[in-house]
Order: sequence, then C-alpha cells, then structure tokens
Amino acid sequence: MIKVGIVGGGGYTGVELLRLLATHPEVDLRAITSRSEAGRPVSEIYESLRGHVDLCFSEPDAGALSACDLVFFATPNGTAMKMAPELLDAGTRVIDLAADFRLKDPALWEQWYGMPHACEDLLAEAVYGLPEINREQIRAARLVANPGCYPTASALGLLPLVEAGLADTGSLVADCKSGVSGAGRSANVAMLMGEVGESFKAYAVPGHRHLPEIRQTLGWATEQAVGLTFVPHLLPMIRGIHATLYARLTGEADLQALFETRYRDEPFVDVMPAGSHPETRSVRGVNQCRIAIHRPQGGDTMVVLSVIDNLTKGAAGQAIQNMNLMFGLDERAGLRQVALSP
Amino acid sequence: MIKVGIVGGGGYTGVELLRLLATHPEVDLRAITSRSEAGRPVSEIYESLRGHVDLCFSEPDAGALSACDLVFFATPNGTAMKMAPELLDAGTRVIDLAADFRLKDPALWEQWYGMPHACEDLLAEAVYGLPEINREQIRAARLVANPGCYPTASALGLLPLVEAGLADTGSLVADCKSGVSGAGRSANVAMLMGEVGESFKAYAVPGHRHLPEIRQTLGWATEQAVGLTFVPHLLPMIRGIHATLYARLTGEADLQALFETRYRDEPFVDVMPAGSHPETRSVRGVNQCRIAIHRPQGGDTMVVLSVIDNLTKGAAGQAIQNMNLMFGLDERAGLRQVALSP
Amino acid sequence: MIKVGIVGGGGYTGVELLRLLATHPEVDLRAITSRSEAGRPVSEIYESLRGHVDLCFSEPDAGALSACDLVFFATPNGTAMKMAPELLDAGTRVIDLAADFRLKDPALWEQWYGMPHACEDLLAEAVYGLPEINREQIRAARLVANPGCYPTASALGLLPLVEAGLADTGSLVADCKSGVSGAGRSANVAMLMGEVGESFKAYAVPGHRHLPEIRQTLGWATEQAVGLTFVPHLLPMIRGIHATLYARLTGEADLQALFETRYRDEPFVDVMPAGSHPETRSVRGVNQCRIAIHRPQGGDTMVVLSVIDNLTKGAAGQAIQNMNLMFGLDERAGLRQVALSP
Amino acid sequence: MIKVGIVGGGGYTGVELLRLLATHPEVDLRAITSRSEAGRPVSEIYESLRGHVDLCFSEPDAGALSACDLVFFATPNGTAMKMAPELLDAGTRVIDLAADFRLKDPALWEQWYGMPHACEDLLAEAVYGLPEINREQIRAARLVANPGCYPTASALGLLPLVEAGLADTGSLVADCKSGVSGAGRSANVAMLMGEVGESFKAYAVPGHRHLPEIRQTLGWATEQAVGLTFVPHLLPMIRGIHATLYARLTGEADLQALFETRYRDEPFVDVMPAGSHPETRSVRGVNQCRIAIHRPQGGDTMVVLSVIDNLTKGAAGQAIQNMNLMFGLDERAGLRQVALSP
Repeated sequence: MIKVGIVGGGGYTGVELLRLLATHPEVDLRAITSRSEAGRPVSEIYESLRGHVDLCFSEPDAGALSACDLVFFATPNGTAMKMAPELLDAGTRVIDLAADFRLKDPALWEQWYGMPHACEDLLAEAVYGLPEINREQIRAARLVANPGCYPTASALGLLPLVEAGLADTGSLVADCKSGVSGAGRSANVAMLMGEVGESFKAYAVPGHRHLPEIRQTLGWATEQAVGLTFVPHLLPMIRGIHATLYARLTGEADLQALFETRYRDEPFVDVMPAGSHPETRSVRGVNQCRIAIHRPQGGDTMVVLSVIDNLTKGAAGQAIQNMNLMFGLDERAGLRQVALSP
Repeated sequence: MIKVGIVGGGGYTGVELLRLLATHPEVDLRAITSRSEAGRPVSEIYESLRGHVDLCFSEPDAGALSACDLVFFATPNGTAMKMAPELLDAGTRVIDLAADFRLKDPALWEQWYGMPHACEDLLAEAVYGLPEINREQIRAARLVANPGCYPTASALGLLPLVEAGLADTGSLVADCKSGVSGAGRSANVAMLMGEVGESFKAYAVPGHRHLPEIRQTLGWATEQAVGLTFVPHLLPMIRGIHATLYARLTGEADLQALFETRYRDEPFVDVMPAGSHPETRSVRGVNQCRIAIHRPQGGDTMVVLSVIDNLTKGAAGQAIQNMNLMFGLDERAGLRQVALSP
Repeated sequence: MIKVGIVGGGGYTGVELLRLLATHPEVDLRAITSRSEAGRPVSEIYESLRGHVDLCFSEPDAGALSACDLVFFATPNGTAMKMAPELLDAGTRVIDLAADFRLKDPALWEQWYGMPHACEDLLAEAVYGLPEINREQIRAARLVANPGCYPTASALGLLPLVEAGLADTGSLVADCKSGVSGAGRSANVAMLMGEVGESFKAYAVPGHRHLPEIRQTLGWATEQAVGLTFVPHLLPMIRGIHATLYARLTGEADLQALFETRYRDEPFVDVMPAGSHPETRSVRGVNQCRIAIHRPQGGDTMVVLSVIDNLTKGAAGQAIQNMNLMFGLDERAGLRQVALSP
Repeated sequence: MIKVGIVGGGGYTGVELLRLLATHPEVDLRAITSRSEAGRPVSEIYESLRGHVDLCFSEPDAGALSACDLVFFATPNGTAMKMAPELLDAGTRVIDLAADFRLKDPALWEQWYGMPHACEDLLAEAVYGLPEINREQIRAARLVANPGCYPTASALGLLPLVEAGLADTGSLVADCKSGVSGAGRSANVAMLMGEVGESFKAYAVPGHRHLPEIRQTLGWATEQAVGLTFVPHLLPMIRGIHATLYARLTGEADLQALFETRYRDEPFVDVMPAGSHPETRSVRGVNQCRIAIHRPQGGDTMVVLSVIDNLTKGAAGQAIQNMNLMFGLDERAGLRQVALSP
C-alpha cells in the first residue's frame, strides 16, 4: 500500500482526490491538510465522504507529511514550490496539481503568475505529467507537475496533428468551455449560482495562464513557433471541459487513422468514430478524454472536439494516473469508474 | 459469476443498471434488450459506456433470457407481469424495477395502473424489495418487486416513527421533490429542458401511483389506517429525490436515538447527526439514503428529511442490492462508489 | 414624477428595483447608494442596465436622500431602522425591503434578528406592505415594511382559508422552496454554483426568520393561536418560490369559489382553475402570485400551491406596488410585464 | 393600431412573439393559429400569458389572416413559402421567422433544406430583415425574411471588419453556443433535460443550415469569397447565444473605434468598452446584441464576442423591430424592456 498525503484538501480538486483515492485498492490515505478546516472531520465538510473517509483535516506539517510515500498538492499556485524541496529531500515523492512546476522557463512563470519562482533548480527535474507524451519519464519521476485542465483537453486534441507536421502551428485556435468547478471552491461573488447560472460568457480573452502551458506542450512536438489563440468560456454547469480546436491543414493524410493510431494504446484517450460529437457528460467523473475530428465541407480547416472532466482527467484523475505510473501499478488502478450519465 | 440479463435497457433505469453492473465483480452481463434499438451497440447510444459494455441491444426473447440466472425488468409498467411467469418456470429469477408486483392487492393495482393484472397468483409470492424491512424474504425470493423511488425515500424516513407507534398515522404528509430523470427517457414536450429548466412545480396532486405503495409499506408497520398526503414536485435538475416528511407525534422518545438504532446495521441508510440538512448531491450516483430528523421549536410536529438518488437507491442500485441478497453475495458488492460531489 | 432613491443598490433586490423602475412611467430615479461601489456607474456592475440607467452609485447620505419623495431600502437587516427616522422627519417616505419593520413586537424582532430594535416607536406606525390585506393603510403610510418572500407566498395561499375559519390553524405546514437569488449577492461558498447546482436541500429547519412573520400575518386573520411548521428549501435555479401549503379542514365550503372570490379584485393574485399546478416560470420577472388549490382524494387535508418570483412579488415588485398605492398611482403602473417563459 | 396575426403560435418563437406583442402599444393581436392546439385558449398552454392574451388558437386560414395588416410566420421551414403569396396578393404584409426567404439562391435553399422552393419569384423581392444592413429596404418591404439566430449574432460581430476590408475572409471562424430553446418546443429525446442538462457538446459540425446564410450576409459586404468555419454548440441553459468569432487581420485600424462608429446609431447593438466580456444574461429577454472586441497579445488574430437572446434579437424581437420599420413606427416601440438579470 502506498502511504499518501494531500496538502490543501479543502477545495474541489482535493475532494475529487479523496473520492478517487477512497476506493483505490493500493492507497493508504494518511493525512489531509487544510489550514482553515484543521481539526474537523473531512466527512463533516464533504457529506459525500461520510462512511468513506474517516480522517480529520490537519495543519500542513512537512514532518508528518514526509512519512508518506507520496504527497499530492491541491493548493493555490505558489504553495508547492515552497514545501516540495523538504519533502523530496526526505524521500517523499510529490505530485503538484497546481501550476508551480508546469512551465520550464522561470521567467515565463514569473510573468504569468506574478511571483518569482521559489525553487528554479527543481523546474528542470520536474516531469510534466501528461502520460500521453511523458509516460516513461513519469515512471521515474520524484516530482510531477500535473497539467492544467484546459492544457490537457487542448493538447490531447492537437498533438497528433502537430506531431505529424500537418497543421499550420502559427494560427491554431482553442475555443474552450469549462464548468464552474474549474474556478475552485472559494467565496467569490462572480461564481455564485445567481451570477453564472443560466448564462454564458468568455473570460480572460486578453491572456489566460494556461496559454503558455499549451504553447509549451505543443512546442515540444514541433520545431516551429506555436501561435495559438486561446479563449476560455464559463459554462452554466459544474463539471466538464469542451475544447473546440481549429487548425489549418498543411498536408494531406487520413486524419481519422492518424488519431486512432496515435492513441491506440492509451487507456484514457478515446478517439470516437468519424462524425461524432462527444458530450461532456460522457466523461463526468472519469479519467477519460474523448476526441472526435471533423473536416467541414472538406476544406482546409480541421475541427477537433475534445472533452474531459476538468476535475478528473483535468486534475485529480490524471494525478492518480501519474501516481500509478510512479509506483509501478497498473495505470488504470482505481480509475475504472463509468461516467455518471445521465 | 451470475449470468444477468436486462429487459428494456433503453431508458435511464436501464443505463444506470449497466453503469453499476459493468463494474460489479460477480456479474456476467449476458443480454440487454430493447425493441427500438435492437442490433445497435449499447455504447453507441450511451457514449458513457464506451469501453465498458460491448453488448448490442437485442430483441426481448424469453428463451434466450432464460439462460440467465437473473433478469432485471427495466420496462414500462405492465411488461414484466407478462414475461415473468415463463422465466420463473425456467428457473430464472426476476427483479422487476417497474410497478407490476409492488401492490399486493390486484384491485388496487388495476385502479391505479388502469389495467387488470396479468398474473395475480405471483403477487402473493413476490417480495417487496426494500431490504430494510424484508431482507430475509429477499434472500429466498424468486421474484422481487423493486420499490418505487418516492416510496423508498418516504418509507425509510417514516418507518422508525411508525414502527415505534409514535406518529399519528392518520395525518402524515410527504412533500417530495424529484429530479427529471425520474420521468424517464421518452420523447415528451413536458420534459424538455426548455420546459422544466429554471422552473419548479408540483404535479399529480390529486393522486400519484406511488401513494398506495407508500401507504402499503407503512401499513405493514402499523395496525392503524394510514392517512397520507403525498405531493410530488419536479426539480430543475437531473438526479435526486428529497422527501420532506411531516408527522404529528403521539408520544415521547429520544427520536435521534430511535432512528440511529433502527438503522445501525443498515449498510445503505445513514442517519445524520442531529441538526443536519442532507443534500441530494451527497448521494448522487450511489445506493444510499441519508436521513436527518428535526423537531422544530420542540413542537409536536416532527420533520424528517430523507434523500436518495432516484436512479440508484431509488431504482437500479436497490435492484442490485436485492440481487446481492438473492445470490448470497456481500450486500455491498458493486455498490461501494463514492457520490460525485461537486 | 416621483423622485426616488434607493439605499443599498448593490444586491439582487436593488438591481431588480432598478430593472422595474427604469421603465416605470412615473418615476424619476435620483440616487442609488452602495458603500462598496460608490463612484462606479451602475451599468458597469449590472451589464443588463446599460442604456437604461445612467446613475453612478453614491455613498449613502441622508441629506441627499431626503430630497427624494421616496426612498427604498434594499439593505441588510438593521440598516433601515437607523436611517428611516431622519428621512421621515424630512418628509421623505420610506419602503424597507428588509425586515426592520415587519414584526410588530420588538422583543420578537430582537429574538429572531439578534439585535435590539433601534426605533421601536416607528414599529406601530409602520404598515405591513401586503396590499391584499392592508391596501388602504398603505395608501396613507409614511413607512411601509415590505413583506418577506416566503411570507408573501405563504400568506397569500393560506389567508382565504384562515380568514374563513376553515383551517385548523394549530397544524399548518408550509413547505417552501426558493431559488438561490433569495440568498442575495454576497461572497458565500455555500451559494457557489458548484455547491448548489444540481442539488437540493432543506435549510434552517429548526427556525427561520420568516416563521414569526408568517405567523403574525395569519394571526391577524384569526382569533386562534397559529401553529405553523415552516421548512424552507433551496432550489437549483435562480428565481422563484413555490409554497406547498397543507391545512386540515375544519369545515365544509366550495373552496375554489372561496379563493376566487377572495382574490377577484386583486390585480396581482391569480387563482387558477381547479386541478392546476402553477409553475414558477409563469411568474418569472413579474409581480404576480398564482395559486391553485387541491383536496386530494376528498380527504380533510387541503393542499394549496402558491408561486411567486422571490425578487418581484416577493420583493421589488411588491415594493413598487406599494409605492404606486402610496402615491395615488394606478396600482399596476410599471408592473405590466409578461413573465419570461421559457 | 396594426392588425396582426401569427401563424404557428405553438412554439417558443410564437410564445415570445406573444410576450412582446401583448405589451406593444401599437398592435392589435387578431389571430394566432396552431393546428394541434386549435380551439384552446392560448393562456391554457402558456400559463405566463394568463391575463395578457385572451385569444384562442385557431386553424390557419388564409382568408381570416388576410384581414390582418401583417402576419408573422413562426412555423417550420417550408410553410410560409406556401401561404405567403395569397396573403401578399390580399395586401397583407408578411414576416417569416423561418428560413423560407433567407437564401437568395433557390438551388442553395434546396441543397440545405431538402425541398424545392415553392415560390422562387418572391425570393428576389423578399428583404433580409437585418436592420443593421437593410433598414431602408425593410421600411418598404411587403415580405421580410427574418434572420436566423446564429446568423444575427455572427454577422453583427463580423460585419464591421468585413465591410472595412480588414479581415481575411477566407479563414473566418464562428464558434457559436446556443441555449436549448433554439431547438424549439417539440417532443425530442435529445432535448430532454435529462439529456442536455449539465452537459455540453458541439453538433452539426459537418454542416449546419445557418452556414450558407452567414456566408451570404458577409458576402454582400465584400467582393471576396467568404470562407467560414461554423461550429454550433448546445448550452445547458434555455436562452442565449454567444458567438466567439475569430478573424485574421489583413490591415491596421483602431478596431474599437471602427466598431463603435459602425454601430453608433443602432438602437439595438451595444459595443462594449474595450476589454469587456459580454454575458448572455445581459440580453435575456431583450432585443439587443452586445459586442466586445479583443486582439489577444496584439497578434494578428482578432476575437469578437457577440451575444444575443436567440428568441428575441435572434427571432421574435428582431421580427417586431422589422414590423416597426415596415409600419413607420419608432423602431424601439414595444422593445424597451430591461434584461432579466439575475
């Protein structure tokens, strides 16, 4: 059994980790921290965990956490980079679900996140935890940077094209839509149901922090500069991301076969039959990405539809997939649920 | 492994059975029928089942179904009573998720369901599948009548009071609210999102078919006539039932202790701490009933709050709980999921 | 033109007042205050008011406000009672949409609202602004206490019965459901869409502040003590209240005729045909209460269904109806909108 | 007063026309037809119209309709083209809210709508009812083709750029999202709340009927061929369209000023301040289009955000705007409502 701790368990990513870890056959959940809720039983705050999780929230304490084999950080940006070095030194492995170790360039990190990086030396070592491109490095990693939700949906949808050199990487468009759980569980007028229910809007069009992350991932797959327009939107629902991706084709290929081949052995990427329109509910609560490709009217613009659950394949599920790889388990352990639909 | 068939798999109860059975460790799913979808892969209609269920829908055929150890009927009312006799004769056990075998009195059945009963002789044999009152009979049953969703939530909330003789059973009120999935998956203008979204209403106040069923269950627990006012309402959400139950107390007792004692050994009924307000999302997708009790201002009216997922403890989950009992399995087999929250 | 000011315009009640007053033919909107937003254009915060309201939020200032003929308070409880005396002395009339002047008994107010009342002398003068019972007093009032949302829906549904002496007033039940806008527009984790979307729960079952208010209103109509069990619930939608009211009949009458007669001349109460089930969307955005009555199976328990929009007939619309009465206008002025449905 | 008839009043476009016409100061509503509901009071089917519309649905009858000055067709595609000639001959003017007269090329119409056109001669005469490009022609028209919902939102967002020759019209992208009311009010499993609630998907990516309509409108404004990729999506909400439009810039200009100047005198197009993100609820129930423009990171891809209510500026509201123009009324008559927000 892997001894696991969670730092920052009071948010949606934290409770999703708990939901999945509570039934994971190889995990012994040892500690879950939350400054604001320390001392309270987890199941008092998350009614859904009654009967499944007996722990109380504790204060974050590196000493206690270092008794774990693995610690997940489900904290705000800027937290993991301060605590990770001590844990790693103690031999505890770390998966950060926030952004601290995602961008390899510390200057870029500071530009987009507004603070200097606290441990630049670890940036080089950290492995970007997208198993579909970094599976082997993840197996060997001490420190994994779990990808963002939009970057997961967008990169998985565009990678086959970009890797094959079939897309004009200077004019990509990612029109993404997310459920409100992506904004986290903090007191915020803008996320009240009275504000976001029965309405729809774009946000952060001038620039969103996931933009450099998507560019970085696509950049690894091409020699060319990546020009990407990324527009996130807020959906009046709780879970799910839908990325609608537009790429201008620069060559010919059997695109359906290209995608199917690329993901043939991936347990958590499902390329749907030609002509499909995946719906976000088909991945609700599961660690799955479903992709469908289109070439409307046979023109030179390709449309890729890519859906995930932002809290699962876009956060906690992918983190557990990474844990499974890091500890030599079946990659699918604890992740065999069927989506809740309807 | 139990060989299982499903008749009528094209509705919400059917897909919920499939979701739960697909990961049940002791089930071998053999057949799923749907007249309208015969020949099509199940996963073509239910995208969420891609990778989990490989079957195609087939025409209902008693011969093929009788090769199963157990057949679930997830059909409209009036179907199971026509096919059950042949299956039972062939040694196949039956759980009917519709209403055909719920009411013991065939005249009452005809009054509320508008057709004569097709096999009255089986009514006496059929066991009402509420494990919290009939566990031992279910273990031995060939034919189980799976309870309705409102009756499950209402009866579990009222039974401790009624069994203890502490409620005026002549003036009970069950004010119940259900998500739209309770209305099934059929083309119906009244269930369009444009009609039921962002709105709320009562329906069937003059009389709903679950009224005699609730009365029957409560009647088994008391010698007195049961007078119950039952008002169902339609919630602008998909899953979940909340029963708000009102009873006039006729005696004194430690009510919290009464409920906790009554359900102490029940794996799927959770009596919450005094003062709680259970929320439907805490049972979303799981076979669980959560109950909280109140006695506002210390008056003589008791309020019981009881929540279930109408498709799970209110239908498919309870059916699998019954299957587990009928086949000598751990009652919780395949039913250990954690609710999807948020 | 009536010169109107609004104190506390930054919440949902405030913006609803603005929506309705912006097209009211007899209103000249002079000032709208909000401490937190002072200096900002109203239409910057409420995009829907672009092109309709040109005012900026200002600091609350009794001097400036006393230049108005009428000031609405859309403030938290406890604010109006501090500012109203100065305004009234200056000849400005006041409608308080909060609870400060609703309860006639200052001890009861202190018990439920947790603070001593700041101007008990005005409690006697204040008129409870439910036109259906106090129309003439409202016409002459300087100070109107606009009713709460639940009390409006509940009282209108029960009054005909109670006034006629046909109900057992010792055992009334009001099972009420409200959209989330009733909780206001303040940063509150419990009202995030991630928390309240796709879920349903009761709250405040031990005691809600609207309980003594409903009891007071019904008490005015009967000589007997009023025993009422009131359970509010939170709906996963934005606007609308549905009160399901249960009363034991103590006499016989043509109940449909009783209700129709009682409200025959009321412009904003609609008694629907026998057998109806009003839906909240039918009153969305309008100053209307729709009522339907039922007597299930001819028993002795009567069920009244009563729907309003909590922000309109339950708050801002009713306040404008009161304003119309106070200033001798057509009671329906500015309130002739048709509900937005779907 | 203009004598008005509506053919096909049983759908969402019909009830929205009724909502707006019921309070229009210059309209005398004479007839509303619905084959399926003939004889029933309109307010029996649309509870929201109780007290506002006293008409009963009637059978469609050209004789009776020709007594009207104007007839709106809120019918399925293919209906108006059969009845319009007789009405026009009788001197009755016609506004078709369906697609019959939108495409000027009958071959294109047949290709996309799957039936030959019934009155090609009227195609040339019909005026495309987008006042922002055809105001003067609409004033003089006998027959107006009311634009589609997606075409209205998309064209208004792109026209200033295309007219100014600043966009590469060969690579435009319109990523559009619509509430479910756009699919109409007919029995359809795919539009059940259980299917579309809490989920999101694209549809008709291979080709949607509004594609040729958008291309035609943009084509009128440019000499170049219009290459447009159009992807519609279905939102889990009732009303509202959000078009996210992508264009590659081919020249430099002050884009904010360009848009503000283009729409300076338009009563129903609101260009928001630079940096804005319009939300669909800000136009809920009103005849308004709000637009914001962005040029992320100063690159060569421009992003235009354009929102309307699909039933109002996208259908019934625009039809009434056209009626006002055709009959010499103030263009804003009956259309001064404030959006319902929250």
